Amino acid sequence: MGAHIAIKQRLLAQQIETPSWAYGNSGTRFKVFAQPGVPRTVEEKIDDAAQVHAHTGIAPSVALHIPWDKVEDYGKLAKYAESAGIRLGTINANVFQDDDYKLGSVTNPDPRVRRKALDHLLECVDIMDATGSRDLKLWFSDGTNYPGQDDIRERQDRLAEALDAVYARLGANQRMLLEYKLFEPAFYTTDVPDWGTAYAHCLRLGEKAKVCVDTGHHAPGTNIEFIVAFLLREGKLGAFDFNSRFYADDDLMVGAADPFQLFRIMYEVVRGGGYEREAGIAFMLDQCHNIEAKIPGQIRSVCNVQEATAKALLVDREALAEAQLSGDVIAANDVFMDAYSTDVRPILAELREEMGIDPDPVAAYRRSGYQDRINAERVGGNQAGWGA
Amino acid sequence: MGAHIAIKQRLLAQQIETPSWAYGNSGTRFKVFAQPGVPRTVEEKIDDAAQVHAHTGIAPSVALHIPWDKVEDYGKLAKYAESAGIRLGTINANVFQDDDYKLGSVTNPDPRVRRKALDHLLECVDIMDATGSRDLKLWFSDGTNYPGQDDIRERQDRLAEALDAVYARLGANQRMLLEYKLFEPAFYTTDVPDWGTAYAHCLRLGEKAKVCVDTGHHAPGTNIEFIVAFLLREGKLGAFDFNSRFYADDDLMVGAADPFQLFRIMYEVVRGGGYEREAGIAFMLDQCHNIEAKIPGQIRSVCNVQEATAKALLVDREALAEAQLSGDVIAANDVFMDAYSTDVRPILAELREEMGIDPDPVAAYRRSGYQDRINAERVGGNQAGWGA
Amino acid sequence: MGAHIAIKQRLLAQQIETPSWAYGNSGTRFKVFAQPGVPRTVEEKIDDAAQVHAHTGIAPSVALHIPWDKVEDYGKLAKYAESAGIRLGTINANVFQDDDYKLGSVTNPDPRVRRKALDHLLECVDIMDATGSRDLKLWFSDGTNYPGQDDIRERQDRLAEALDAVYARLGANQRMLLEYKLFEPAFYTTDVPDWGTAYAHCLRLGEKAKVCVDTGHHAPGTNIEFIVAFLLREGKLGAFDFNSRFYADDDLMVGAADPFQLFRIMYEVVRGGGYEREAGIAFMLDQCHNIEAKIPGQIRSVCNVQEATAKALLVDREALAEAQLSGDVIAANDVFMDAYSTDVRPILAELREEMGIDPDPVAAYRRSGYQDRINAERVGGNQAGWGA
Amino acid sequence: MGAHIAIKQRLLAQQIETPSWAYGNSGTRFKVFAQPGVPRTVEEKIDDAAQVHAHTGIAPSVALHIPWDKVEDYGKLAKYAESAGIRLGTINANVFQDDDYKLGSVTNPDPRVRRKALDHLLECVDIMDATGSRDLKLWFSDGTNYPGQDDIRERQDRLAEALDAVYARLGANQRMLLEYKLFEPAFYTTDVPDWGTAYAHCLRLGEKAKVCVDTGHHAPGTNIEFIVAFLLREGKLGAFDFNSRFYADDDLMVGAADPFQLFRIMYEVVRGGGYEREAGIAFMLDQCHNIEAKIPGQIRSVCNVQEATAKALLVDREALAEAQLSGDVIAANDVFMDAYSTDVRPILAELREEMGIDPDPVAAYRRSGYQDRINAERVGGNQAGWGA
Repeated sequence: MGAHIAIKQRLLAQQIETPSWAYGNSGTRFKVFAQPGVPRTVEEKIDDAAQVHAHTGIAPSVALHIPWDKVEDYGKLAKYAESAGIRLGTINANVFQDDDYKLGSVTNPDPRVRRKALDHLLECVDIMDATGSRDLKLWFSDGTNYPGQDDIRERQDRLAEALDAVYARLGANQRMLLEYKLFEPAFYTTDVPDWGTAYAHCLRLGEKAKVCVDTGHHAPGTNIEFIVAFLLREGKLGAFDFNSRFYADDDLMVGAADPFQLFRIMYEVVRGGGYEREAGIAFMLDQCHNIEAKIPGQIRSVCNVQEATAKALLVDREALAEAQLSGDVIAANDVFMDAYSTDVRPILAELREEMGIDPDPVAAYRRSGYQDRINAERVGGNQAGWGA
Repeated sequence: MGAHIAIKQRLLAQQIETPSWAYGNSGTRFKVFAQPGVPRTVEEKIDDAAQVHAHTGIAPSVALHIPWDKVEDYGKLAKYAESAGIRLGTINANVFQDDDYKLGSVTNPDPRVRRKALDHLLECVDIMDATGSRDLKLWFSDGTNYPGQDDIRERQDRLAEALDAVYARLGANQRMLLEYKLFEPAFYTTDVPDWGTAYAHCLRLGEKAKVCVDTGHHAPGTNIEFIVAFLLREGKLGAFDFNSRFYADDDLMVGAADPFQLFRIMYEVVRGGGYEREAGIAFMLDQCHNIEAKIPGQIRSVCNVQEATAKALLVDREALAEAQLSGDVIAANDVFMDAYSTDVRPILAELREEMGIDPDPVAAYRRSGYQDRINAERVGGNQAGWGA
Repeated sequence: MGAHIAIKQRLLAQQIETPSWAYGNSGTRFKVFAQPGVPRTVEEKIDDAAQVHAHTGIAPSVALHIPWDKVEDYGKLAKYAESAGIRLGTINANVFQDDDYKLGSVTNPDPRVRRKALDHLLECVDIMDATGSRDLKLWFSDGTNYPGQDDIRERQDRLAEALDAVYARLGANQRMLLEYKLFEPAFYTTDVPDWGTAYAHCLRLGEKAKVCVDTGHHAPGTNIEFIVAFLLREGKLGAFDFNSRFYADDDLMVGAADPFQLFRIMYEVVRGGGYEREAGIAFMLDQCHNIEAKIPGQIRSVCNVQEATAKALLVDREALAEAQLSGDVIAANDVFMDAYSTDVRPILAELREEMGIDPDPVAAYRRSGYQDRINAERVGGNQAGWGA
Repeated sequence: MGAHIAIKQRLLAQQIETPSWAYGNSGTRFKVFAQPGVPRTVEEKIDDAAQVHAHTGIAPSVALHIPWDKVEDYGKLAKYAESAGIRLGTINANVFQDDDYKLGSVTNPDPRVRRKALDHLLECVDIMDATGSRDLKLWFSDGTNYPGQDDIRERQDRLAEALDAVYARLGANQRMLLEYKLFEPAFYTTDVPDWGTAYAHCLRLGEKAKVCVDTGHHAPGTNIEFIVAFLLREGKLGAFDFNSRFYADDDLMVGAADPFQLFRIMYEVVRGGGYEREAGIAFMLDQCHNIEAKIPGQIRSVCNVQEATAKALLVDREALAEAQLSGDVIAANDVFMDAYSTDVRPILAELREEMGIDPDPVAAYRRSGYQDRINAERVGGNQAGWGA
């Protein structure tokens, strides 16, 4: 019982950022299915993100994607967010959608295109200055589709050059989060394909450069919690982009495909000190609600991370350490599984009631009438999407 | 030397169909990069396909995709193709792009949507009657993204019902090709995910239903040539959709990612009797030239299949059988690799010269001025694409 | 509450068979780590299996592996098992360990070796007559390591011939379970690599031939519950070999790597009617306890299947169907996840108490003193293992 | 023609080391098939390795595995090798076969076991002093099978401690090669699972620590040549363990499963300066000839690396760079594929004749009578194997 109180206390400190693009339309190369009520403006995205926070209590910020969320006045946007009850978070750069980027952005063989991409990245830091964002998230779709198409090593040189320039531009309290991804949209080589590549670049760059782990960006069979533990040990874990997948980068609701994996990841976060606020780890969602309702999808995802965290906090670490040191494989696994097998939903319901929110966030959202209202109001205009 | 003459003789019989959609724009969910000179009409796609045939001599037909290639008068379209030097081939149904298909087409829980999808499939058979096409290719993107989203088994019942109705509509000389695919765009379940599922349905349907093997639609580690050999043994291999991939369904130029695999597949085709015209196997390309030039991409792909076929025909099957029966693993592998290691390009150059075409099809196309002409002429209008 | 009573009622009917070889030593190609107390004889294996049944109440039979469990008098062995409180179950053939099988058993290019392998299979049916076993489980390690090594199709012909002969020998109440496996120990081709191959052979053979699904034998990304649902629909699912894996055929305790997957599989079993006794599905474990204690490993595994089954039975199928038919993706997933998130251990504890066994089987086994006793008694002799 | 002469000149410099254990028996967990003529002693392994060198001319050294190749007097062994025409190469440590290592060697929770493992590693450096070997190859099978079994991070701490101690013991001209592997024999976590982990440890250790890339140790879909290019750029590529695989760590003859991949790897080696002698890259085979003849298997493998190297040297790098910089994807791929499609066997035959050896090494070995002689002579005694 005392354990439950301590766990609730620690869960109060959790903050999960939702991405503005999760509220817009998304899909696969085969089809983007539009949904009713989808935002047409950044402000409407912020309104939706604020709903997620209102019903979960632990999603107080929203990540922006430039240029999808480009506005004239970011200070005004920050105030808008504040009035909605949340704040602006991480700035995500986009160097994959201009026609110029067909063969790459910062690694493009053409110096003109590289310069253009770099200018966009630097512009993103300008925006961070205006929004007060701490983190710049860099995902490069750069790579090649065919053997011989470009020089693997020169592309690394070009990448390093761009990262250096961006790093030099960062302010004292700003950070760069470098994301890696196995494949897609490039199919043969990807210029930052794995954590090792991101780590090596961040190490060279310095303290303000950290690795971002997207849970859907690994080869089959990869042990993601190992990477989390390793990066924490090296002081180089900067952020999570949470989502789940069965095969490739499916971008499903986090925890939907393998809730046990999410628990194992959160356990390593807790065990490695990454759950402490001072560790500075950014916990973000990065998902596509292609066929399911978007706001409930975000709420469910935030709750899934919270459930996994609660279970991770429940692990009896003393008993675990004892079983581990004694070499009793089954006993150690039992201690670990005991936490996972526990139904933590009653604890979370209690926690929410203490926070003054409904114990069942998805149900509360459905009852709130918000979805009906936006379905009715958001007619006409251009629905937000990836603009691909 | 005599062997080379025999091989050239057999290569003369080869026919590879190119897909109309390979000439239009395509991309990933992140971006479709438009290319100059891309067709705006079906007729322009046919013109491009005719170029591929003109330079390779073995691509005499083009597959259509409905509704992308929908026209008023298919008889007129067939005549247009004929005058361009090729003919209309397989009809590809499309039940994945209407907003109604968000949760499936023929397996949708909603009977109204199922009926709509079935009507489209039946319409495709009408079109086959008009074009004189032999084959209807069915690929269903149907599936689910989340556990519990729909009932796996009921979806099979619905699928079976639709297939029955289409099969019943087929004419005496018409066939149904059922394609399977591991994942994408559905991420959790796919209703026809593997050859076993397609095979079981085709077996129930009867002689006119055959399995289509798309070389990019398998789980990692799957031995595709085994499937080819097995389906040929069962009399259920109907067609190939050729392309290549490194990780998922990359739809790269066939032979680009693993030329040795393509050789092994073509060897099983030859060995299992699938290369004979009477086997009725349709050899088709199904690719996306996202970043490379489209017509040269198709020409290169046709040549890659031809090279793999030439090597497959080169295998000294007597020596191979002898080594196999003697249990000499290295000797058997040596016989097999000897064919693969051979540079067959001189044989193919000879063959082309005997056919009256340039020995280097890609170079000849580049020299022809066709690309410059279409780049200049095809301005304005709507470039063909997937319309996703 | 009424639901819980009904679930307990249905759980009472569950029977899971443990494999005799799980009690012996096992390992990887790198090392077999011997454990204390490992059985030296078939009778000692039966004693250990009886322990698993004593503590779980739902493991009343033990599978035998021939020749590892070969004895002079199977009637006597059956009586021995009976006196220990369990019965003899499935007979597992072994055609992979004789030096003659280097290049295959029933698919070997050498007819002498094929005859020898077939004779062993027929001998196994003789043993079934003596033990009263219903099922013959056939796993063929046959395959090739190198392209060209042998003829893929001829190997299928040889396989079919052997299966025909064994099928013809089966008694009226006997069945053949054909197992498939992606790879290992053969690396290039495997002669029964996937469910489709096993299914096609079983279909040809007839009613007594069924497919055995080993949960560790699939390519990455394969949806196993789809296969389960499909085979149940076709009436061709015969058995499970349960275990779990992270990457290849790890043979870990079932449910250890992905408990959510095990739940999804058991849901499809229940939904497809496979849980009913008359469906005749054999639920078996097939695992290797390389580093963990073997008897507790089996007990834990039986409990894991039971937990997954309890959760599967908990799914509110009416609510699920309603959400599915309404196309509410999140609601349907919620119903499904609600059952999974439930901690069913209290229900199982109640059930066990009603069955007169300890609510915590692993703890009860540890307290029983059995392990200490066998560690002390089983000294000298040859510990059971795979004899590889 | 001049190009061919230059390529032959560069090929003369190539040296590939064969592993002593490739000449002994090996297999899978299911069965080790013994072969006639297999060595019983280290000296006989050296004799076999000398055969590979005699017939290929480019395999002048043999790697040792301790304790499999433990002898009293390494100076005498070195002289034996010299008299056989080869030299002793890399020392491979073995900390995976003692019963104590069930839960790990240098990462074991038990400090006594860690000490024992470390002592073995230090002993290996002693042996290097005696043999004059430059390189110590470290592969750790350490890891866990079950979530919770041990603490991922503490295992890294223990690993780092052991590596530090070994590194400190290295002589001025000695190096440590740290190998990584995704999985097997550990199934849940592996303590050095990927290049990033090996790289981070080597970076911390210093100049004498380098990463060893085993071509069979990656997750599906991993781009190995990218890793090669990246490690070369960082100055951290130390060695290759060549073999090939279709699915897991199959340890087949290198180039057998994907010859195009081997070419791409060798291209990055050449392009990144790794082919120059002063780069210090060790090119080694690490394979298991489970079913094929061992000495011909090694010869074939050496030739496969040589063929891939010849093709890599054939790439017209000027034309490639031009096509790459112009952004012509198909032209760049064409230049690359032109080298791969070339049949380099005639060049290699010429090279061998110039070196005074038979143009067809496998055939020459078969004709030599060596195999018949060892089959006859090597009777009795204990055949070498892994001793698992």
